[in-house]
Amino acid sequence: MNQTPNKGKRGWVIPIGGAEKKLRDRVILKRFCELSGQESAKILVIPTASELEDTGPRYVDIFESMGASSKYIPVNEREDCFNQEIQDSLSNATGIFITGGNQLRLSTILGGTPVAKLIRSLNASGVHVAGTSAGAAIMSEHMIAGGQSGPTPHENGAVMAPGLGLTNKVIIDQHFRQRGRIGRLMAALSYNPFVSGLGIDEDTAAFISPDGVLEVVGSGAITVVDPADLSHSSMSDARHRDAITLIGMKLHVLAKGAKFDINERIAYPPER
Amino acid sequence: MNQTPNKGKRGWVIPIGGAEKKLRDRVILKRFCELSGQESAKILVIPTASELEDTGPRYVDIFESMGASSKYIPVNEREDCFNQEIQDSLSNATGIFITGGNQLRLSTILGGTPVAKLIRSLNASGVHVAGTSAGAAIMSEHMIAGGQSGPTPHENGAVMAPGLGLTNKVIIDQHFRQRGRIGRLMAALSYNPFVSGLGIDEDTAAFISPDGVLEVVGSGAITVVDPADLSHSSMSDARHRDAITLIGMKLHVLAKGAKFDINERIAYPPER
Repeated sequence: MNQTPNKGKRGWVIPIGGAEKKLRDRVILKRFCELSGQESAKILVIPTASELEDTGPRYVDIFESMGASSKYIPVNEREDCFNQEIQDSLSNATGIFITGGNQLRLSTILGGTPVAKLIRSLNASGVHVAGTSAGAAIMSEHMIAGGQSGPTPHENGAVMAPGLGLTNKVIIDQHFRQRGRIGRLMAALSYNPFVSGLGIDEDTAAFISPDGVLEVVGSGAITVVDPADLSHSSMSDARHRDAITLIGMKLHVLAKGAKFDINERIAYPPER
Repeated sequence: MNQTPNKGKRGWVIPIGGAEKKLRDRVILKRFCELSGQESAKILVIPTASELEDTGPRYVDIFESMGASSKYIPVNEREDCFNQEIQDSLSNATGIFITGGNQLRLSTILGGTPVAKLIRSLNASGVHVAGTSAGAAIMSEHMIAGGQSGPTPHENGAVMAPGLGLTNKVIIDQHFRQRGRIGRLMAALSYNPFVSGLGIDEDTAAFISPDGVLEVVGSGAITVVDPADLSHSSMSDARHRDAITLIGMKLHVLAKGAKFDINERIAYPPER
């Protein structure tokens, strides 16, 4: 296996809310590239979520324009995930980037294959993994696959599926402000309030360090819903499509530079 | 002044999130009518927010179909608010209903006139006041006149104006789920976090008792954002349209039967 940029530590986990800037002010992609080793970075792009042919080549061009070496792996069916060449490409990477598209393509194509296992073990041994939009949703143990928009949670308001499992401390939602998703995020949390919810705006990323401290990067905000102190939930009693009662959650809205410790569940303002 | 149904106590304050049911399952309008005295209720409708001519007559028909007597006052300009006959009609009511439309019509036409003062003093002496949509927004001391939709608060995300001042414990937003307004509600709260925010869904009402205990009635939910424990806000530093950081708010989502004490800021689940 390749020398990772993060010897002895886990790699970073970097969910991005979609529509990150790709030409100017591309602070998110730049920081991911720097973390992965900048000039010596080897960034592997997984365009599986997208059905557009140019998604892979487009990100390769972006990372190469930043001085990294980059390639994409054409994984479009489950059998591609058993291909040894593709697994070797992955094992060589210092950073892995999962593009947007449909998160159910990611979970149905990668789920349970050697590629999914490899992404987990590489991240555990120091390789950074970033994902945007669907690529962000898939990162956590429990993933939001779909649901209803709007600020109020409803019974059946979120459809869940298993994700890649790079963290089990958070559930991630994306395009957050742009698609009005706080209701479905709260619905997802209410099923089992052991995790915090991260609602990530477009052009915004959560850079989650190996120690579990998330820093906000980009032009939007991350809305953190922490249900640890939830004192009442009507989710188990609710009938189909009922509005549900949830009492006692914590809510933080975090813009650029603010931090959140996903283990201790403490938010910190940006340093001055 | 008329015998009020609530001798010696303030009247109820009843903001409704808009689009309350008017034919079947009209639990909100029915309960308002009951509170106001049912068969002996005299309900005065203020259709000023609306520019549709049939808004007043329509609500009069609804309340009369419930057994109350009802009429509407045609207040379309500031000078109407100085008309003694209109003031007499108001003074005779056991319940006042403010329709939807544009809340800036309400504030610009009623603001500072004898009609506005009379609504306050009648409510203080026991007359119930309900308002839907724009009629709900106008009720509190500080009113949201406009702003940006979406779950993330932005600098300049809410436009504020003075309201009728029937309560200064809450700021009210309406059509909450349907129009994705939690971001603008949080922006409004961040300007001065001394109040709680009530985000009221359509066909949902907050029945606020004279003691300041709110009960949720209707098919949607009320989202309560309580910024009392806010430990950090970047609102004062934010530049134009920046995403803002707000750390440490409380969040409750309350469906039918749940309660919230607007003075003590405590939420209660529905009684079984």
